[in-house]
Amino acid sequence: MKLATLRDGSRDGKLVVVRGDNQVYASAEEVAPTLQDALQRWEQVESELIEIASELDSGERDGTPVEIDELDAPLPRAYEWIDGSAYINHIVLVRKARDAEPPETLETDPLVYQGGSGVLMGPTDDIEVPNLEWGCDFEAELAVILGDTPRGTTAEEAGDYVRLIVILNDVTFRNIIPDELAKSFGFFQSKPATAFAPFAVTPDELGDAWKEGRVHLPLRSVYNDEIFGEPEAGPDMHFSFFDLIEHCAMTRSFTAGTILGSGTVSNEDRSRGSSCLAEKRMIEKIDTGEFITPFMAPGDTVQIEMEDAEGNNIFGTIDQTVVEVDR
Amino acid sequence: MKLATLRDGSRDGKLVVVRGDNQVYASAEEVAPTLQDALQRWEQVESELIEIASELDSGERDGTPVEIDELDAPLPRAYEWIDGSAYINHIVLVRKARDAEPPETLETDPLVYQGGSGVLMGPTDDIEVPNLEWGCDFEAELAVILGDTPRGTTAEEAGDYVRLIVILNDVTFRNIIPDELAKSFGFFQSKPATAFAPFAVTPDELGDAWKEGRVHLPLRSVYNDEIFGEPEAGPDMHFSFFDLIEHCAMTRSFTAGTILGSGTVSNEDRSRGSSCLAEKRMIEKIDTGEFITPFMAPGDTVQIEMEDAEGNNIFGTIDQTVVEVDR
Repeated sequence: MKLATLRDGSRDGKLVVVRGDNQVYASAEEVAPTLQDALQRWEQVESELIEIASELDSGERDGTPVEIDELDAPLPRAYEWIDGSAYINHIVLVRKARDAEPPETLETDPLVYQGGSGVLMGPTDDIEVPNLEWGCDFEAELAVILGDTPRGTTAEEAGDYVRLIVILNDVTFRNIIPDELAKSFGFFQSKPATAFAPFAVTPDELGDAWKEGRVHLPLRSVYNDEIFGEPEAGPDMHFSFFDLIEHCAMTRSFTAGTILGSGTVSNEDRSRGSSCLAEKRMIEKIDTGEFITPFMAPGDTVQIEMEDAEGNNIFGTIDQTVVEVDR
Repeated sequence: MKLATLRDGSRDGKLVVVRGDNQVYASAEEVAPTLQDALQRWEQVESELIEIASELDSGERDGTPVEIDELDAPLPRAYEWIDGSAYINHIVLVRKARDAEPPETLETDPLVYQGGSGVLMGPTDDIEVPNLEWGCDFEAELAVILGDTPRGTTAEEAGDYVRLIVILNDVTFRNIIPDELAKSFGFFQSKPATAFAPFAVTPDELGDAWKEGRVHLPLRSVYNDEIFGEPEAGPDMHFSFFDLIEHCAMTRSFTAGTILGSGTVSNEDRSRGSSCLAEKRMIEKIDTGEFITPFMAPGDTVQIEMEDAEGNNIFGTIDQTVVEVDR
């Protein structure tokens, strides 16, 4: 099942069910007005939402044509947005880029940070940059959206709490990071609003590609109309989503609608390209002694999407353009 | 005006208006079902809520007796909970306690971290500790609750976005912090759910004590029935709430209902005591070479409250007991 949020002028938009081929949607208003509401009452609403999806797929129910610009992030605001950094290759490269060492516990203790969740961007929202010196970068990632998840949930139990899977662009201001992390309180100013692809899908939509808390498909980033990276999201994800859930739930519980990210998808195999500019720049530095690719400037575009084995676009496409703003 | 949230089995509870003397409340259901809703439509609802408060205070409207146990956190879940660390004395002491240096930019660049906001505790909720080795501590703080706050808001403009003031207990697992901060992604497992006093008050309730983004009154912590600290919250707050808002809003905007904390209230004057065990322990270490006061154990209690110049309890009292739990 694929769900999306139609912009209707309200803060949370309107929940819609999307046909498997992404072409049309049907209102889910009679079942749940918003995705947040559906997540809060998942056991009650799931079967009714699935029925709408089946009727769309079988042609029993007519749909309204999908216009991506009319869709917002699946959750335009969320109660928590927690981002992991589960691809070791990304950690090693970006830390090298800022002359920092990876933590000693790199392979045993997951890295996660708490992100801002009150304002999230839709798939085609502009990336507004008040200061080009901040070094704007994209980061292509996967995330899961959780149901109510109790404290102490183990990796073995974690699958029960994964309701939906999404992809996202964790926009980052690279040049703010070093001073910010030097203060040891984590990212804050360096992480502006995060953007999401339009369709949030239930794990079964991924078939065999969803395995043991990992998504075994490549995530594609297109930068200024050229393929920038297509790393496999599965094998190099050192900590699975289930491991990340266990880590996060050690000392507290999570409310339905909590979003948990994988971190930037990254492969050791360089031929797969990268999911952010920072990695490419670091590889350039290693190879040539210099950073060559600049950070994003006004007019630069990024598209992020994931196809299944048959070439069908699963989540719809994030398609953003950088614009300079006064503040 | 004082607002509170009545537990009614729902996720956000029910908004009530509390009489100035904290003794009775009246339902605000006809104006706004929840505090989150009121914050989203503040311009529309403020005057009607003030009217209920006036009628309660004048005796025109009868109220229902306040039972603190029936009240939840003003926002039982929030879209963002951002915590500053604006009292320099606290930073210096707790960093010393873990053999870490204060950041070089201590006095020029505010420290803030993004906290978990999906599950917040009410004023009398137990502090549940699955593992006593984690070193449970309380931290008495003030916070402001914001309306919709645009990116680029300056300290000069920030006052326009402060809707309510609250006090809180930022429960912390001290022994998890060093390994966590060593990874440089900020606090996560070390910060379980935060607890709030029952009444959220508009700035005018503080009269002259609310000045230039600071609250000029002492914040009292009582630990196991003895006064533990009564530091003045005003003069030693190096960065005001307005400074913190400017810092936070540099790269993104905030949705109505965002909570922004001051950090642990702390005075250089040792005779005022402390607002957390970690500070007391560090002072013991400096004076005697050893930590003496242990972290919280099952049965330990903490009360946190603030009185105005006339001795009236402004926010109601946080009153929590530590209990050990399996997980």
